[in-house]
Amino acid sequence: MKSKSSTIRLLYAASESSADSLYLSGVFVPDPYLAIIAQKKSYAVVSQLEYGRVAKQSKFDEVLLLESIREKAAENLQIELADVGPGELMVYFAQRFAVKKIEVPADFPAIYYAKLFDAGYRVEIVEGAFFPKRIKKTDAEARAIKQGNAASAAGIRAAEAVLRAAKIEGKRIVYEGRTLTSERLRTIIDQACLAKGATASHTIVAGGRQACDPHEGGHGPLRPNELIIIDVFPRVQKTGYHGDMTRTFLKGKASPAQRALVNTVRQAQLAALDSVKAGVKGDHVHAAANAVFEAEGFVTERRKNGFVGFIHSTGHGLGLEVHEAPRVSKGAPKLKAGSVITIEPGLYYPEIGGCRIEDVVRVTIDGYEKLSNLHYRWEIR
Amino acid sequence: MKSKSSTIRLLYAASESSADSLYLSGVFVPDPYLAIIAQKKSYAVVSQLEYGRVAKQSKFDEVLLLESIREKAAENLQIELADVGPGELMVYFAQRFAVKKIEVPADFPAIYYAKLFDAGYRVEIVEGAFFPKRIKKTDAEARAIKQGNAASAAGIRAAEAVLRAAKIEGKRIVYEGRTLTSERLRTIIDQACLAKGATASHTIVAGGRQACDPHEGGHGPLRPNELIIIDVFPRVQKTGYHGDMTRTFLKGKASPAQRALVNTVRQAQLAALDSVKAGVKGDHVHAAANAVFEAEGFVTERRKNGFVGFIHSTGHGLGLEVHEAPRVSKGAPKLKAGSVITIEPGLYYPEIGGCRIEDVVRVTIDGYEKLSNLHYRWEIR
Repeated sequence: MKSKSSTIRLLYAASESSADSLYLSGVFVPDPYLAIIAQKKSYAVVSQLEYGRVAKQSKFDEVLLLESIREKAAENLQIELADVGPGELMVYFAQRFAVKKIEVPADFPAIYYAKLFDAGYRVEIVEGAFFPKRIKKTDAEARAIKQGNAASAAGIRAAEAVLRAAKIEGKRIVYEGRTLTSERLRTIIDQACLAKGATASHTIVAGGRQACDPHEGGHGPLRPNELIIIDVFPRVQKTGYHGDMTRTFLKGKASPAQRALVNTVRQAQLAALDSVKAGVKGDHVHAAANAVFEAEGFVTERRKNGFVGFIHSTGHGLGLEVHEAPRVSKGAPKLKAGSVITIEPGLYYPEIGGCRIEDVVRVTIDGYEKLSNLHYRWEIR
Repeated sequence: MKSKSSTIRLLYAASESSADSLYLSGVFVPDPYLAIIAQKKSYAVVSQLEYGRVAKQSKFDEVLLLESIREKAAENLQIELADVGPGELMVYFAQRFAVKKIEVPADFPAIYYAKLFDAGYRVEIVEGAFFPKRIKKTDAEARAIKQGNAASAAGIRAAEAVLRAAKIEGKRIVYEGRTLTSERLRTIIDQACLAKGATASHTIVAGGRQACDPHEGGHGPLRPNELIIIDVFPRVQKTGYHGDMTRTFLKGKASPAQRALVNTVRQAQLAALDSVKAGVKGDHVHAAANAVFEAEGFVTERRKNGFVGFIHSTGHGLGLEVHEAPRVSKGAPKLKAGSVITIEPGLYYPEIGGCRIEDVVRVTIDGYEKLSNLHYRWEIR
């Protein structure tokens, strides 16, 4: 560690919340900690509380003990031990590595950026991907995402089974003697995900008008004859990779308008999927879905009470984050082989209901490999 | 919004991951968005995807549509629409509010800090709490945390019931015909939390030597006659507040050393609790726990393979984050009435096992109010 290095890269984040930090470490650390990449070696500085576990389980080349490093930093910088915070540690390492330039990610904490800047270092903030490799998933990563989607599918299947077993009583859906609510169905879905080793958060179970607000989680009684969007994006506990799948169901009897809506969304999904391959722009995939909606006369527009139609993008990258690069939306650049993306067109009209159908694929040279698997039957009598 | 304001405060974060953003908004938003506080009014800038929901459910005084604001910013700054990112929006608002100073939190993304700085603004990074009020919990917040702890308790009770129903067969603990593992017990705990409306992540179920690594989640078969630490810190889905409780169990027969360890940890917890009241230093509370360990001869030290003894702090603040202010550790300042803290001393010796016992209290003028509730029986035959 004593040799000279012109550039080092720094991360300061908890790997539980920062995908970059988890990508580098391969191990969950609940509180922010300093990671350093210098001369192609990676270092972590963690407290005694984390030391043993991180030293044993992480991908870091070297794990340093925070308590010792703080003492050394105090000595080298000639300051009090109590004054050695993360910013001082960074300055200490910058000195130790005889650094000329420091690279940090866009979401690096401003406070330490300012400290390094004030200490006279040239700090370059990397716009876009800090680890460009993250955009191309390895086979192991694709498997981890597939596992996430298996959990999603288990959750959606559990919900479907409940809807199938439930009875319609007037304007209520009754399951095991009680009115079925979004909350209750969400619990059942999330429990099914857990049984597959994945933790779901903010699972969407939204029916009727609620489903027309795509990030509304859903609350209160679910109604018969209304479209119910179920969007499940759990995180696999061991690896941190996510699944992300959506199906839309209806308990009762669908109206012609609802049938047209659901069929069109599925057609749009197929059209978008058909257009996916390496070298094709995300913009083009989005346009493929859009074209189906336009051809079928489903208009996207602003009304008094909000937006209706196809009001979000066709998809997004999926991995250690639920939303990550690449984009699959208007103006999005060319897709690369290996990228994992969702394809999830949707339509939302308060007077009909909302429908979204979402699957996950890995982009290949001549098309895609599907990483999610579940049927598309949606009307449940 | 046209009047002059000398200072504005900015946040750019997802309220799902940023406690400050959730504290301000009261609503979960999955992707980073811009929030502005100016002249005691708060504004959010969100896309059409979030607009309806945030306008309806959030605590913001005004919710602005990202798509419209971007157009205005492009016009005002005389740049292309495609070049209007979050940093440009911030500059636009700084102009619109005729700002002299901009305050941002310590974890504000460096990239936007640098943009504002380069645009000539005086940007002050707030060290410590961005919303100092967060350190004193209201009655509603205390109730939300209590609900989190009720979920924790439900999870731990579910685990206890499994251990009680399980049978010892040689070196295995067998439950419903299969060897009981950390993973399986964790799933049962997390499912019980879900049934109480709270999502648990990274629940710790660690036995024997594994438990001596306090942030090790635990894996593989649990063993009879070994201490098993169960630490459950779920997040209430509706509010975002956490519970955080730990109990230590043993299935089988405890050794005299294990009994002494567990009893001493409980004594240390009681001593720490006894010392809690507003005006007392967190340092003093930590010292109270430490004194019990020292009096009973439980030494904290570094050995070849890691640290043993009381190797972490006595507690931490709890709320929208699992770890937040105030600290309850060496050198920690005076506690304030209203702060919610954990009291969780522990002892870790590979040759005996690990034990941690954790409860949550709200600091009052003359002591504390307990926000967690579960018995302390731990030996399960």
